[in-house]
Amino acid sequence: MLKQPSAGGDDGSGFTPLVVVELAPDAKEEAVVWLTRKISDSEQSGGAGLSVQQLWSGTAETEKDNPNVFLVGGSRQRLLSGAEDLGLFKEFNDGSMRAFTCANRDNFKDFKGDGDGFLSMAECQYIVKHELDSLRAKSETHIPGYEKAKLYPGKSIIRRMQSKGILVQVFPLHETEELKRLSFTWYKKVKLSLQPLDEIRHYYGEGLALYFGFLEYFTFALVPMALVGVPYYLFDWESYDKYVLFAGFNLVWCTVILEAWKRSSATMAYRWGTLSRKKAFEEPRPGFRGVLGLNPVTGREEPLYPNTKRLLRVYLVSVPFVVLCLYLSLYVMMVYFLMEGWALSLHDAEPTFWTTVLTFVPSVIYAVVIEVMNLIYRYAAEFLTGWENHRLESSYQNHLSIYLHFNFFNCFASLFYIAFVMQDMVMLRQSLATLLITSQILNQVMEAFLPYWLQRRRNKKMMRRARKRASPPPAEMPLADQVRLEADMSTYLGTFDDYLELFLLFGYVSLFSCVYPLAAVLVVLNNVTEVYSDAFKMCHVFKRPFSEPAANIGVWQLAFEAMSVIAVVTNCALIGMSPQVKSYFPESETQLILWTAAIEHGLLALKLILTFVIPDVPKHIQTKLARLEFESLEALKKKVRARSTNK
Amino acid sequence: MLKQPSAGGDDGSGFTPLVVVELAPDAKEEAVVWLTRKISDSEQSGGAGLSVQQLWSGTAETEKDNPNVFLVGGSRQRLLSGAEDLGLFKEFNDGSMRAFTCANRDNFKDFKGDGDGFLSMAECQYIVKHELDSLRAKSETHIPGYEKAKLYPGKSIIRRMQSKGILVQVFPLHETEELKRLSFTWYKKVKLSLQPLDEIRHYYGEGLALYFGFLEYFTFALVPMALVGVPYYLFDWESYDKYVLFAGFNLVWCTVILEAWKRSSATMAYRWGTLSRKKAFEEPRPGFRGVLGLNPVTGREEPLYPNTKRLLRVYLVSVPFVVLCLYLSLYVMMVYFLMEGWALSLHDAEPTFWTTVLTFVPSVIYAVVIEVMNLIYRYAAEFLTGWENHRLESSYQNHLSIYLHFNFFNCFASLFYIAFVMQDMVMLRQSLATLLITSQILNQVMEAFLPYWLQRRRNKKMMRRARKRASPPPAEMPLADQVRLEADMSTYLGTFDDYLELFLLFGYVSLFSCVYPLAAVLVVLNNVTEVYSDAFKMCHVFKRPFSEPAANIGVWQLAFEAMSVIAVVTNCALIGMSPQVKSYFPESETQLILWTAAIEHGLLALKLILTFVIPDVPKHIQTKLARLEFESLEALKKKVRARSTNK
Repeated sequence: MLKQPSAGGDDGSGFTPLVVVELAPDAKEEAVVWLTRKISDSEQSGGAGLSVQQLWSGTAETEKDNPNVFLVGGSRQRLLSGAEDLGLFKEFNDGSMRAFTCANRDNFKDFKGDGDGFLSMAECQYIVKHELDSLRAKSETHIPGYEKAKLYPGKSIIRRMQSKGILVQVFPLHETEELKRLSFTWYKKVKLSLQPLDEIRHYYGEGLALYFGFLEYFTFALVPMALVGVPYYLFDWESYDKYVLFAGFNLVWCTVILEAWKRSSATMAYRWGTLSRKKAFEEPRPGFRGVLGLNPVTGREEPLYPNTKRLLRVYLVSVPFVVLCLYLSLYVMMVYFLMEGWALSLHDAEPTFWTTVLTFVPSVIYAVVIEVMNLIYRYAAEFLTGWENHRLESSYQNHLSIYLHFNFFNCFASLFYIAFVMQDMVMLRQSLATLLITSQILNQVMEAFLPYWLQRRRNKKMMRRARKRASPPPAEMPLADQVRLEADMSTYLGTFDDYLELFLLFGYVSLFSCVYPLAAVLVVLNNVTEVYSDAFKMCHVFKRPFSEPAANIGVWQLAFEAMSVIAVVTNCALIGMSPQVKSYFPESETQLILWTAAIEHGLLALKLILTFVIPDVPKHIQTKLARLEFESLEALKKKVRARSTNK
Repeated sequence: MLKQPSAGGDDGSGFTPLVVVELAPDAKEEAVVWLTRKISDSEQSGGAGLSVQQLWSGTAETEKDNPNVFLVGGSRQRLLSGAEDLGLFKEFNDGSMRAFTCANRDNFKDFKGDGDGFLSMAECQYIVKHELDSLRAKSETHIPGYEKAKLYPGKSIIRRMQSKGILVQVFPLHETEELKRLSFTWYKKVKLSLQPLDEIRHYYGEGLALYFGFLEYFTFALVPMALVGVPYYLFDWESYDKYVLFAGFNLVWCTVILEAWKRSSATMAYRWGTLSRKKAFEEPRPGFRGVLGLNPVTGREEPLYPNTKRLLRVYLVSVPFVVLCLYLSLYVMMVYFLMEGWALSLHDAEPTFWTTVLTFVPSVIYAVVIEVMNLIYRYAAEFLTGWENHRLESSYQNHLSIYLHFNFFNCFASLFYIAFVMQDMVMLRQSLATLLITSQILNQVMEAFLPYWLQRRRNKKMMRRARKRASPPPAEMPLADQVRLEADMSTYLGTFDDYLELFLLFGYVSLFSCVYPLAAVLVVLNNVTEVYSDAFKMCHVFKRPFSEPAANIGVWQLAFEAMSVIAVVTNCALIGMSPQVKSYFPESETQLILWTAAIEHGLLALKLILTFVIPDVPKHIQTKLARLEFESLEALKKKVRARSTNK
């Protein structure tokens, strides 16, 4: 646990800056004053009860810095009561995780004296963000100075200011000292060790820690497959009978690792107290627009958007667009096959070194085109999902992840075509290898080299500034410089893209690796560097993200499981098509296909049964959860009894 | 709503008998006194706070009746506080269902004055049962008078007395007037109408009402399939191309009706207030044995049974036994095929009327044998599951329903063999028809004629008794006679067997009906009589069961869905095997099979997507549930705020 959170330094008055609120440089004075008063007003009078300070208030900077940058913090007592409001889970004296309550504070582990250092800085920032988000309009009809920025009772002020561009951004500050320590244990140490997941959680919250936990787990889970794959490469085991063995292993392994992950994720989420945390009531997402009406759930006046309109948008615009994309994707694939055929014919006519190289060119071009299309499609999907105007963030995220089917199709269409229509195993292997290697190289460039380059450029800029000030750069950066630096950093948009990348890699390994066993090796290598590049980008490229409580990897668990079901089908089909298996049924192809189909159905049923039989939460954690529930039931009963006795 | 519950009549002192507790006739005096004192002691001194009366206390019966029969009731105040304890859901003033609390009692609909008639008699009986079950030993080490009936702190007294045979039975009393009214609206009315589900729920509780609701829904859902099936019989549509159409319709329909049932069941459960009811903490089931130890969840001393031992029993005894049963079932099937072959050869050699009849004999015998085996297996499964010593009733029920796979296998093995190994569609149709009709006749005999006969016999006995007393039988039966009559009735063992029957019928319709479209018609006819026979047996054959809150049909939803998945596979295969479809692929059987497999996979995927896309709970109920949750969250927040302001 941290001691008193300190971000870049206390300014002497006991105020610890936690979150930066940046308003537009040309924001009207009255709006700025109104917002800061709202933030600092007491809760009884409708404010957030937090402390707020202007960044440049004292220091007279010569540069044209934005004057409307504010630092927000909160008193210890305010943050603790905010933690109770949010139902934050903390470690109890008996080692279990319980929702924090101020009344019960002394029974929590690490709560000493007046609670100094009890909440981590990430938790404090999360609380501040929640309090800022729940600053609601009362009788105001619009934001002072902005006639067009309408408000209605209960509307979140911060969200309205953000959607009108008055508020530029709200972000939590990094802790420089803590970050140095974290990045050292995380990726700067030379010796091989596991990631410090608890510390990552402590600094970035559960959502991100679960991503890194999954990345690590996934890498280790692939090691056995990589080890089994290596001899295929070393000894040039080209015979298909060995591939059959590999495919069988592959199938069982995929199911086992996904089931085991659920348990391991539940263990982590229990340790972090998010497993039994109840979901808070969800607010409409910032981008949601609609006509004012009565919300049937809350009874408050709030914008409403008819579901039928949304469904029309989904089925009349989004779905046709996706179909169009699929068609385009198929068209590009066909062009690729034409190019491939042309290159091969050229090579056959005149086999030189250069024509051999030429045969690889179409694959590489195709791989690059796929990556570009994925990227374009990613933005299009985000735009469309936004335009569909989902009320809740969770519904938005679910629809966004449905569009990832296109990415899946885009990446794997050509492989499916080669495998099952052309039935050319040699070409399948070659194509798989090219796709995998190219996309890995592209991703590494985008995720490691680009950030590194950006970082160096920024460092140089800072050096130049320091030189301008004509004083030797101090050992510790002043707070103003830190805020300026972090405000310029890019914003981390969430774990979606990172999970998507892992998902596609998992697809390459599980769907077709029985024809290219080296795939697992490549993915393991990629993941190891991925850990480093992701860690680096989190620590030095992006603004610190607000911590997000999470109990599991959400929709991605489903996506990975769906992939492993498809893997059963493809692997069975590949095995059925292998010459070795075909030789068992020399007289009748029909028999072969029937057997393949029967075995496939058996395997699918087995997978289903395994999913049911293996409990998702380990026994000892189930017991602990049941114990907590039993205790709260008993407490409730006692209360009821006491009340009826008193009467 | 009922007025003041009255079962056979009030005895003048304001005591309403609710539940009968029958101890063994030779039970030791001290144990009887101890138990009745426990029941009537106040809650503060560890009793149940209920009223108890001996049935024969006043009336001097000449016959050798069991003297240890007690009637248990409770004061209105006691029952209301019991309802609060149990978290019973009642209708609130605004029409929503909320957990009843005494503090808030005046805001509940139908709560007038001192709450007379607020709780239905079934609810009162459920409360009394719960209070009796939670009578726990404190310092007693054994039941007085029974050295061997050990007790330990926290052990349920009733359960120990029951397992030691000191307590014979505990059952709720029927309400004669109410029952007459219910049975009139339920099955005695001549005009066609829906079942009075709300009244059934009012009298028998949610669990049973959901069964009858499902039975009704299932019958109506099959009507379209029956209607489509009739012309096949009338016009003798023997061509397979029409069967293909039927199979396609079948597939879609199965999926749709199961999804729609979930929504309709959620609607009912919401109306009855069980949808949002939280599960109470589960006690060990009465038959559970083990060595005393500390329960890790409750921290109480309680018998524990190691899970490894249970798993050993499951995998070393139960699973081998099931495999043995499957083998036996296969063996019987083979004998059936031998008999069938022998009968056919006899018919071919000398085709007379009697040999034609003879060809049906093996099928009928086989059908009867299957029913007998199902019955034997049912008891074996119950014995084995009991012997596996499951701690919780829910785990016991889950394991019991796993064994129903044998019943499934037993019923359908021969049909699968005929369809996919022998590929004889004519024999499949004949066999299906024989199995279906025979099993329906047998079931109707067991469920309608047998109960009717038992009922007549009992009535005669009562008449003889009344004549013995040499007085004209009174218009209303005295309470003592009613209790005696009901104590002799058989005990209803729960809905398991009833659901199992529906499950097997659903299997006949969904798996193979494309070769015998009349199946749906037969099942609809069967279900209509089933409603009447089930209603009759609930009202007049069995003791009144304790009401059981339920929010859905539990594991059976899963079982029916699994069946509909298997139906996709069998129907696709049957379609693929039809001559009409085969004629599309004259040159290559391989192509045909590949297409069939592809379409089957597509249909399975579609089914899966449908299951995800259709919300299980209708939108308007989701909104209402969300509203309740939002209100309780708001209330909690206010409480927290108020507390922090007070400080």
